[in-house]
Amino acid sequence: MDPFMQAAIEEAELGLAEGGIPIGSVIVHQGQIIGRGHNRRVQQGSAIRHGEMDAFENAGRQPARVYRDAVLYTTLSPCSMCSGAILLYGIPRVVIGENQTFLGEEDLLRSRGVQVEVLQDARCVQLMRDFIASKPELWNEDIGE
Amino acid sequence: MDPFMQAAIEEAELGLAEGGIPIGSVIVHQGQIIGRGHNRRVQQGSAIRHGEMDAFENAGRQPARVYRDAVLYTTLSPCSMCSGAILLYGIPRVVIGENQTFLGEEDLLRSRGVQVEVLQDARCVQLMRDFIASKPELWNEDIGE
Repeated sequence: MDPFMQAAIEEAELGLAEGGIPIGSVIVHQGQIIGRGHNRRVQQGSAIRHGEMDAFENAGRQPARVYRDAVLYTTLSPCSMCSGAILLYGIPRVVIGENQTFLGEEDLLRSRGVQVEVLQDARCVQLMRDFIASKPELWNEDIGE
Repeated sequence: MDPFMQAAIEEAELGLAEGGIPIGSVIVHQGQIIGRGHNRRVQQGSAIRHGEMDAFENAGRQPARVYRDAVLYTTLSPCSMCSGAILLYGIPRVVIGENQTFLGEEDLLRSRGVQVEVLQDARCVQLMRDFIASKPELWNEDIGE
């Protein structure tokens, strides 16, 4: 297992243990994690703290050259908001745990030149399958449905 | 002046008075402001609190039916992150103060069925012109450049 996807999964599991939505993300620059996070809709009553957004926020204010040499790992295919943040900051490569339970804006990212890799990791799929089955209303809220 | 764009401009001016980037936004549902905000990059050291994102966050967790019957007002053309949030939550209409100092993802929004209106408001233009002239590095950071 890629250690950075492993770290993203650990973030997702931490969110689940907090009663939240199990999606995690890390941002890696030159082999180091500079920001990590997980969905905090439940924990912070937040409409914007998706896992990837939380990782961006926790990475703090970074210069453009850092983002443009970074890789974002996320356990789930990124929604339009998180994909938009990836485009805003010019992240060149995104590694996705799975896109079977939710397909985000991968085509948009690719059309703008982002390198997108999908692992279809069984643990990532199971985390979301179990969560969606147990709390479908919460999941729908998180994707605006 | 539209009272909701007026409220968004007041948010932008509040941000400027705090030493921040002068971009404001309000989200309106059935004639009432349900969320208002301004860019807090400087104030909170935030990479994700653009004006529109701050308005979403301050509106709190809302059901899909509220977002889908809402209008988002923003003093500046929304970047890819904020446009992505608009798409995530299915906001059907966006009113933009100006797009002369920065052109965001208006085409993407329109291509997804969002009604986009640009006022080219002189106060909005002046706020950004003055700000970009005085703090170009900060502005570039905010748009990932």
